[in-house]
Amino acid sequence: MGVLDIKPVKYEEDRMLILDQTQLPGEMVYLEMKTKEDVWDAVYKLKVRGAPAIGVAAGYGLYICTRDICAKDYNDFYRQFTEIKDYLASSRPTAVNLFWALDRIEGRVREFEYAARDHSARDLNKSEGFKENTERIDTWENTQSMIKKAILEEAEKIRTEDESACRAMGEHGLTLLKPGMGVLTHCNAGTIATAKYGTCLAPLYIGHEKGYGFKVFANETRPLLQGARLTAWELNMAGIDTTLICDNMASIVMKNGWIDAVVVGCDRMAANGDGANKIGTSGLAILAHEYGIPFYMFVPTSTIDMNTGTGDDIQIELREGAEIYRLWYEKPMAPEGIKTYNPAFDVTAAKYITAVVTEKGLLYPPYEESLGKLFKQNKSLK
Amino acid sequence: MGVLDIKPVKYEEDRMLILDQTQLPGEMVYLEMKTKEDVWDAVYKLKVRGAPAIGVAAGYGLYICTRDICAKDYNDFYRQFTEIKDYLASSRPTAVNLFWALDRIEGRVREFEYAARDHSARDLNKSEGFKENTERIDTWENTQSMIKKAILEEAEKIRTEDESACRAMGEHGLTLLKPGMGVLTHCNAGTIATAKYGTCLAPLYIGHEKGYGFKVFANETRPLLQGARLTAWELNMAGIDTTLICDNMASIVMKNGWIDAVVVGCDRMAANGDGANKIGTSGLAILAHEYGIPFYMFVPTSTIDMNTGTGDDIQIELREGAEIYRLWYEKPMAPEGIKTYNPAFDVTAAKYITAVVTEKGLLYPPYEESLGKLFKQNKSLK
Repeated sequence: MGVLDIKPVKYEEDRMLILDQTQLPGEMVYLEMKTKEDVWDAVYKLKVRGAPAIGVAAGYGLYICTRDICAKDYNDFYRQFTEIKDYLASSRPTAVNLFWALDRIEGRVREFEYAARDHSARDLNKSEGFKENTERIDTWENTQSMIKKAILEEAEKIRTEDESACRAMGEHGLTLLKPGMGVLTHCNAGTIATAKYGTCLAPLYIGHEKGYGFKVFANETRPLLQGARLTAWELNMAGIDTTLICDNMASIVMKNGWIDAVVVGCDRMAANGDGANKIGTSGLAILAHEYGIPFYMFVPTSTIDMNTGTGDDIQIELREGAEIYRLWYEKPMAPEGIKTYNPAFDVTAAKYITAVVTEKGLLYPPYEESLGKLFKQNKSLK
Repeated sequence: MGVLDIKPVKYEEDRMLILDQTQLPGEMVYLEMKTKEDVWDAVYKLKVRGAPAIGVAAGYGLYICTRDICAKDYNDFYRQFTEIKDYLASSRPTAVNLFWALDRIEGRVREFEYAARDHSARDLNKSEGFKENTERIDTWENTQSMIKKAILEEAEKIRTEDESACRAMGEHGLTLLKPGMGVLTHCNAGTIATAKYGTCLAPLYIGHEKGYGFKVFANETRPLLQGARLTAWELNMAGIDTTLICDNMASIVMKNGWIDAVVVGCDRMAANGDGANKIGTSGLAILAHEYGIPFYMFVPTSTIDMNTGTGDDIQIELREGAEIYRLWYEKPMAPEGIKTYNPAFDVTAAKYITAVVTEKGLLYPPYEESLGKLFKQNKSLK
C-alpha cells in the first residue's frame, strides 16, 4: 500500500475512521468515530488536521452524528441537526474549512425545507378530509431518509472535490519544477492533510511517479513538529529522497545551493496575495528571496478570502506556551514561569511569493489583479 | 545569590566543580572533577559548553589532572603532562578555546625547561664533586611544585581575563542599546558560557543593573535548545523580562515591531568579518537586515582568526541526526531511517553584521579594514 492510499478520514462499511495523526510517526492507528464527542475530540486534539482534511472530517462527522436522528418532522430534525452542527463547530474555532463544510451540508439539509412544508400541508389536508396525494408528496419518514442520504452524498462530494483540487494543484505545480530539483517545504500540506495528494506536496508525488528524482528537505516545524512527524513520514514512505532539518537550518541549506524551490501550503490568502500559513513560513520566504530561490504557495481557491484586504487583517491564532517548552519532551525545556509567545501562523507578504498555485492554475504578481481576474472569471467562487 | 554568581566552572578549596548544564533548567547540579576522565566526559557531553567556559574548564582541568604527578625530572613531568593534555584535547576536537587554553598552559610549563636543564647540570656537577649552589638552583621537587603552581595561576588567569573581556564587551555593547529596547538573541552566549557576564548577554546584565528595562526574546535554538534551557533560565533568574519563542517565530516578532536589536555570540570570525555561530544565526541576520533591525555580533578577539580569509574557509561541524529527532523527546519524532542534516554552526556573511563588539571596542564595516587595524594596533593579538 502506497502512502497515497492512506486516508486521514475514511468512510467504509458504515463506519467513519480517523487516522490519529498525534501518534505518527510511531503508530498508524485508525480511530472509529461513533459519537459526536469522538468527532469533536479528534478535531480539537489535532488527531485530524490540515484544513482540507478537517473539512472532510466535518462532513462525514456530521453524517454519522445525525444518521440516527428519529425526528417527528422537518423542524424537529433541523433543530437536532443544528445542535450537533454547532457542537462540532466549537471543536476548533479558527478552522475555516470546518465551518465551510458544516455550512455546506446544512445547505443540503435546508433544500428539504420545501418538501417538509408539503408534509405539513398534507397533514393539514388529511385532517380536513382531503384525499392524500401519495404520488406527489412522500411520507416524512422517507424524506428523513432522503435528507440523511443527501448529507452523506455531500460529505462524499467534499472529499472527492478536494481530491480533484489537490490533483489539479499538483499538475499545475509540477510545471514549475524540474527533475532532480532540491525542494524545501515547511509543516505538512501533504496527503494526510487533505483528501489525497496534499497541496504543496502534490507536485512532488506526481513528479515522483514520473521519475523526477526530487531531493526534498523538510523543516521539522516547531513547535508541533508536523514536518518531522508527518511530512518526513509521508515522503519517506513514498520513497522520495527526504532530509529532515531543523527550521533554523533553512538558511544554510539554501546557501549550500541545495534548494531550487520552496513549496508551502496556505491557510488563508488575502485579496492582495498576502498568505497566512504555519508559523515560520514568512521567514522562509524572506530567506528564499534573499538567496534568489523561487517561493511557491499552494492555495486552494476555497482558502482565498477576497473580503480580506491584506495580511494585516488576518487574525493570528495564539496557542499555549506549553506547546513550546513541554509538549513532546521528557521534562520541561524552559524554566518554570517563563513567558512565551506562540503564534500558530504568520503572514507571508505577497512580494515574497513568486507564484500562487491554485486548482484553477498558476497566478503571478501583481496578485490584486490576478486574484481579481480569477474570481471574476469563476463566478462559482465566492 | 544572583545568576552572575553562578559559575559554570569553579575551583574552591582544592576542588574543581562543573555546573552540569545538560540538567538545566530542571536541576542545578555541580559535579566534582576528580579524574581526567571526569573532565573529558564533562566537555564531551556538553556538561560545560560555550567557548570561553570550555577554556576555563580546560585550564583548571589540566591542573587537577597534573597536580598529583610525581616525576623524576622535568622530561618525565613533561611527558606525563603532555599525555594528559592530549587526552583532554580529544574531548571536543572542534572547540578552538579548548586547544587555546591547553596550549597556553603548556607554554607556562615549558618556561621551566631551562630550570630543568640546570637541575640536570647540577646533578652532573654533584656527581663530579662540585659544590651544590642551593641559592641559584632549586631542587627538582621544588621546581615541580613551582610548575604546578604556575599551571594553577595560568588557569586562574584564563578565568579572570575572560571575565574582564566579557565585562568590557558588555560596556561597549551597551552603548549600542537604549532603555526599553526589545532585544532578540539566539543560543546561549551568557554568563554560564563564559567566566562571567557572557558575551552578547553581558550588555543586557549591565543594562539591567542600570534599570534599562529591556524586553528580551530568546530563540529556543534547536536542536539542543540552549535558548530555552539556558538563556531563558539565566535571564529569567536575573529578573530580565524574557519571552521564549521557537526559532521560526523570529520573523513575526520582528514584523510585530517588537525587536530593536539582535545580539548574538560568535564561535569564529574570519578576516573579512564573516562570523560562524550557532546554527540559525545566519538566517536571523538576513531577517534583521530585511526588517531594518541592527544585528550585533559579540566577538572576543581570541575568536577572530586573521588566518582565515572568509567564512567559506570555516569548516562546519556536523553532528548526529538523533539530536534532531530523538534527543529530548519521549519518543522518536521522525520516521525510522530518515536522513538528516545537522550542522552545529552556520556562517553569517559580514554584510549582514551591523557592528562587531569586541573587548577592545566596537568595529564597523568594512571589516577587512577595521579588523586589520585592530590587530595592527594590538600586537599582543595574534
